[in-house]
Amino acid sequence: MVSYHKPVIAVVGSSAPSPLTRQLAFEVGREAVRAGFSIVSGGLGGIMEAASQGAQAAKDELRRSGSDVDLPQVIAVLPVAEKQRATPFADIVLPTGLGYARNAVVVLAGDGVIALEGGSGTLSEIAYAWQFGKPVAALAPSGGWAARLAGTSLDGKRGDSVYRAESAAAAVEFIAGQLAGNKP
Amino acid sequence: MVSYHKPVIAVVGSSAPSPLTRQLAFEVGREAVRAGFSIVSGGLGGIMEAASQGAQAAKDELRRSGSDVDLPQVIAVLPVAEKQRATPFADIVLPTGLGYARNAVVVLAGDGVIALEGGSGTLSEIAYAWQFGKPVAALAPSGGWAARLAGTSLDGKRGDSVYRAESAAAAVEFIAGQLAGNKP
Amino acid sequence: MVSYHKPVIAVVGSSAPSPLTRQLAFEVGREAVRAGFSIVSGGLGGIMEAASQGAQAAKDELRRSGSDVDLPQVIAVLPVAEKQRATPFADIVLPTGLGYARNAVVVLAGDGVIALEGGSGTLSEIAYAWQFGKPVAALAPSGGWAARLAGTSLDGKRGDSVYRAESAAAAVEFIAGQLAGNKP
Amino acid sequence: MVSYHKPVIAVVGSSAPSPLTRQLAFEVGREAVRAGFSIVSGGLGGIMEAASQGAQAAKDELRRSGSDVDLPQVIAVLPVAEKQRATPFADIVLPTGLGYARNAVVVLAGDGVIALEGGSGTLSEIAYAWQFGKPVAALAPSGGWAARLAGTSLDGKRGDSVYRAESAAAAVEFIAGQLAGNKP
Repeated sequence: MVSYHKPVIAVVGSSAPSPLTRQLAFEVGREAVRAGFSIVSGGLGGIMEAASQGAQAAKDELRRSGSDVDLPQVIAVLPVAEKQRATPFADIVLPTGLGYARNAVVVLAGDGVIALEGGSGTLSEIAYAWQFGKPVAALAPSGGWAARLAGTSLDGKRGDSVYRAESAAAAVEFIAGQLAGNKP
Repeated sequence: MVSYHKPVIAVVGSSAPSPLTRQLAFEVGREAVRAGFSIVSGGLGGIMEAASQGAQAAKDELRRSGSDVDLPQVIAVLPVAEKQRATPFADIVLPTGLGYARNAVVVLAGDGVIALEGGSGTLSEIAYAWQFGKPVAALAPSGGWAARLAGTSLDGKRGDSVYRAESAAAAVEFIAGQLAGNKP
Repeated sequence: MVSYHKPVIAVVGSSAPSPLTRQLAFEVGREAVRAGFSIVSGGLGGIMEAASQGAQAAKDELRRSGSDVDLPQVIAVLPVAEKQRATPFADIVLPTGLGYARNAVVVLAGDGVIALEGGSGTLSEIAYAWQFGKPVAALAPSGGWAARLAGTSLDGKRGDSVYRAESAAAAVEFIAGQLAGNKP
Repeated sequence: MVSYHKPVIAVVGSSAPSPLTRQLAFEVGREAVRAGFSIVSGGLGGIMEAASQGAQAAKDELRRSGSDVDLPQVIAVLPVAEKQRATPFADIVLPTGLGYARNAVVVLAGDGVIALEGGSGTLSEIAYAWQFGKPVAALAPSGGWAARLAGTSLDGKRGDSVYRAESAAAAVEFIAGQLAGNKP
């Protein structure tokens, strides 16, 4: 049977990134949408907002090109219960009220995960992504836990490693390739 | 600042509804999308699937009419961690892995809530909707907890009552009116 | 193999109860501990605190009687992430940070559930208790949703009904009997 | 006002540890109880069970010594909804049904956190512990993520680092010291 499920990339990273990483996050959102992915994030500021903004920029391109497909979506999975706390660049807001336990929900919503910079919150999300068996790409130029874990294996439960991406486009391309390979 | 947030109606009800209620749920999904709402549900079968199917039917109408706006979305918030368990009629699947604690997340994702039929699971969702201060409409003809609570007040914390709706269109219209009234 | 698991009764009810219900909640906590049960609640004020206080009073009795067994415990499962928000009468505090999704966790922690008075929050907990297949007793004299649901069936998934208890002791006795009956 | 709240140490680590680490986990549970702490863990096998077993051994010592205090407790916070899945060495079982989102709840239940060995699941728990501002000790001899992070800082939000402990007793002593220092 036909499924309407849209493929989704989860973007995880700092709420207070460097200007370089913010630009990279914008590009991740934009490249994800250009490649046909919706994106999900924790829905607050920093990386989450920059990726959402990049995704909206790519949606605008699609609209101007006269695309008649159902556009990819920008999803915000908040720790708090109030929708208005989400970045305005999100289309769909899920205010979970779960606190930081929502980190697990953000990661599960992605078919693959891209990490940028990041402190301990992002580290919990990368760890979850690995534990849930999701393909993970980390942007090495962004610093933080993404850079520290790029190219490494988190434990022996998986035979692969966190993909070391040097650009937003490479990260999205890696996730797309992994998901294509998983299809029968 | 402009916000991209789409308005959302949460649809809650039985996973094994009567044929009549299934038809009503289809109409709720369809009328919600016709009125410009995305919908969210628990993402499994029964009411959840019928509402999602109705919403997709209305999205098809919008596409045929040449609508070039960003279409409303059909969102599934699953209790399990596997996306493939969701109804195929969902656009966006969030596999929370939270078990029935996800009932709180489904309800929080809606700006308003419409209930049909329903046993104890739906009852927990109606109770949450009331507790979270969401406008709630219950379809009286559908039976179950929706019928039992239609027109009643759940406790003294709110001055209003669960709206008793006799049709899908009336339920959607009620939610739309309540949300319009909330805007400054 | 020997198991150390202590049997637990979940006590659910209003955070702002009437004086009568507060007294009943105290008695529920006391009778539960006298019967060998630990108790779990949402850990805040009102019914939750009164039941915890009654349980501590019964623990004091046990200590004075020279009981050398491992005493029953008073458990608080908070919606917030800060332990100091719990009633001081709790022994074990779990500050979940899950918001009202913690209602599911409170109920799952009980082998049986006793409800007193209660508005929409308590209603969601009674609904969960039914859905999770737990034995449920409701104190009819306490009013609120406990009184409205005492003696009724929430849906057709179970053959029994919410036990209508006229006293704290009767409620605890009912739960104890149900759990004894479940043992091989 | 007097509070009954018991101090709690969360113990996190592999479900399939090496024999050495299993022995260390037993000692962590035992030393924690000897120092007056209850312990909480994820409630399944491996480190979680070994620590629970060590805690029960220390409780037996306390009973034989004629202690008349309310004994420390062994708490299991399960990802599943079925109590019988918990290690039999737990006194109090909370079957959350939250899946791996329960990792946040385990860590929040501790006033301090001790990590042993560990793969990606444990890594998410160490990251949460840091994010929640809990004192964290990691047993360097145990290997895994505990060894990798011992003595390091996870991000710039805190001025301290993960304490590098060479023995179970040193880890418990560190947590006890941190909590004593936090009291006015």
